[in-house]
Amino acid sequence: MAIASKIESFMEKSSWIRKMFEEGAKLKAEYGEENVFDLSLGNPNLPPPEEFDKALMEEASVKQEGIHGYMPNPGYPSVRATVAGSVSRDQGVSLSENDILMTCGAAGGLNVVLKTILNPGDKVIVPKPYFVEYNFYVDNHGGELVTIDSNDDFSLNLFEIEKNIDSSTRAVLINSPNNPSGVVYSKEELKKLGILLQKKSDEFNSVIYLIADEPYRKIVYNNIDVPGVLEVYRNSIVVSSYSKELSLAGERIGYIAISPDADDKLSIFNGMALCNRILGFVNAPALMQRVVGKIQGASVDMAAYERKKNLLCEGLAEIGYDFVEPQGAFYLFPKSPVPDEIKFIRMLQEEKVLGVPGSGFGAPGYFRLSFCVADKVIENSMTGFKRAFERAVK
Amino acid sequence: MAIASKIESFMEKSSWIRKMFEEGAKLKAEYGEENVFDLSLGNPNLPPPEEFDKALMEEASVKQEGIHGYMPNPGYPSVRATVAGSVSRDQGVSLSENDILMTCGAAGGLNVVLKTILNPGDKVIVPKPYFVEYNFYVDNHGGELVTIDSNDDFSLNLFEIEKNIDSSTRAVLINSPNNPSGVVYSKEELKKLGILLQKKSDEFNSVIYLIADEPYRKIVYNNIDVPGVLEVYRNSIVVSSYSKELSLAGERIGYIAISPDADDKLSIFNGMALCNRILGFVNAPALMQRVVGKIQGASVDMAAYERKKNLLCEGLAEIGYDFVEPQGAFYLFPKSPVPDEIKFIRMLQEEKVLGVPGSGFGAPGYFRLSFCVADKVIENSMTGFKRAFERAVK
Repeated sequence: MAIASKIESFMEKSSWIRKMFEEGAKLKAEYGEENVFDLSLGNPNLPPPEEFDKALMEEASVKQEGIHGYMPNPGYPSVRATVAGSVSRDQGVSLSENDILMTCGAAGGLNVVLKTILNPGDKVIVPKPYFVEYNFYVDNHGGELVTIDSNDDFSLNLFEIEKNIDSSTRAVLINSPNNPSGVVYSKEELKKLGILLQKKSDEFNSVIYLIADEPYRKIVYNNIDVPGVLEVYRNSIVVSSYSKELSLAGERIGYIAISPDADDKLSIFNGMALCNRILGFVNAPALMQRVVGKIQGASVDMAAYERKKNLLCEGLAEIGYDFVEPQGAFYLFPKSPVPDEIKFIRMLQEEKVLGVPGSGFGAPGYFRLSFCVADKVIENSMTGFKRAFERAVK
Repeated sequence: MAIASKIESFMEKSSWIRKMFEEGAKLKAEYGEENVFDLSLGNPNLPPPEEFDKALMEEASVKQEGIHGYMPNPGYPSVRATVAGSVSRDQGVSLSENDILMTCGAAGGLNVVLKTILNPGDKVIVPKPYFVEYNFYVDNHGGELVTIDSNDDFSLNLFEIEKNIDSSTRAVLINSPNNPSGVVYSKEELKKLGILLQKKSDEFNSVIYLIADEPYRKIVYNNIDVPGVLEVYRNSIVVSSYSKELSLAGERIGYIAISPDADDKLSIFNGMALCNRILGFVNAPALMQRVVGKIQGASVDMAAYERKKNLLCEGLAEIGYDFVEPQGAFYLFPKSPVPDEIKFIRMLQEEKVLGVPGSGFGAPGYFRLSFCVADKVIENSMTGFKRAFERAVK
């Protein structure tokens, strides 16, 4: 075999997703891009804000020795200080540049965190539904992902979390606003989770980290607030990126924020700096670090996402779909009208509407729709949604 | 313990390097930056070429939906096609976009390659001296690094390589022009290596890859040619970056080129695309992909590096240092005048000259000097080099 057995098996396991994407591409080729309604991808369609364009031009024009060269592995100290200021406001605790590492997006940041903390066989608990890539990130560094049920409204099931923590649990990984459910965990839930993790850390005499993956923090509806984890639990770590809030997913820029009160924090910070280097990231892209450092607080036009969300929710509710209205992110996660959601995804495909089966997120019986697309894609998809629904429930 | 045991031990093992850097920083703080001659870092000091500045401004000003968004994990097809053209010219074989993946620098590329091909316990052979980070890259993906002696002039010792290949050998990893020795492996050597690897692959009925890490390919002296590996061995893979030739080390942009004749090439390519994604790189930074795609063939002012090399070589030769003149890269790797080179590095430090002990590259008794610094740093370091040498040999 030319490649590693594990990679071969990963490819086999994900081949049905690839096949589905290929079928979508085939549909577009056959019927024209504008006649296929692709709600399967999480690639933000809104343009970055004007502040970004301006800051990019300014930073691109800087000519100074070493301006595109290496900086310390955690990133430019000045950028980290600025990001620390923003995260302090978001999280309600006071961070400094020594609590922040700039990363190649949240995906890069999560790999750095997991590499730094996981011993072989350590478990990472993740509530369902969850971002499927977590499986790989945890496996990359010798850990084991333990996925657990959430409540019917996708809120945290603390009983299930507690039941699944044992002496080899190293972390609980949450994602709020959640991909794919759109749920935002409440402050009350997070406080209880913090108390639980402290109790269990004490019981097993070993730190259990709370890792919060927060790339959708700024994309919320009805002015809902996303409670911070840093103020509810001492040993927590936030991982985030500018991919969604600034529409920069391809530029690979994000950060890790370590709770300033974490046990043995200097060692965590230095370990993460080492892991950022040895995993081959070395440092987050220099130019984009400087650009995001300049425009903290800027974001894409959130009203547009709210409009798209309403378009999709209202349309699907009228047809009769059952779903929890998203509080954040740009996904809707309806129940499939038939028990086997893969079958329903195929029915949607026949109507030229593309979505993703919930099985890919540990939640069979549901499917994910991304509404980070042009309004007219959502509007024009409704006929297909209606026909598929009627065929399914007839 | 807050962090993984392995990361803790990595940090302990590398603590002497950190200590040395801290001592250097202390010297600079005490005596002034300009009175300390720091030849310890491989951060290119030359500005990127004008073509880069121009292309960056052009690409930064593009406003188009999705221009900073995700593209396919291997990178923009058009950029990959352009890079394929350049690599074809460099390597003397014909590559297409389907043989190229854009990566977060060579460090990112090497991690992707190793993750894709290594089964647990697989061995990777590396001739000494070698870039110390290879230890981590191979370990990250469950492999074992086997370092082997080279000839006295740093050329490949094929006898040693052959002796060390066994049924668990998965790859031979070479770096030419070499960091730290500056040696460029000849076409003759590479051909023999190719024949050896084919023979051994046949013997063990398992592909042994030849991986060539080539970030210094364009930085060569006396117009020497860097022979390609793709034309000498079917199962070879090139990893490179624009960090050195365009002075963009902080921007994290490089590529992998797979031999078009490699066994099971499509599976290697798809495996690498998957690994680029799941390791958290996702894709090489979008903007920099487009920029380097536009300026293939551009490079920093190589005459400047040649001048710096000559300054350092002539100065040290006159004092009496023993070294192999570098054919490429921007490092000199002299013999230490005393057997314990760490002791000699401390003597240099006392003269306010900073270098790196060869032990860090698997070659005790030698030390590495980087000449990617201002000419005057090299000129002003000579008094210190002379005094340390005289103290050492007296």
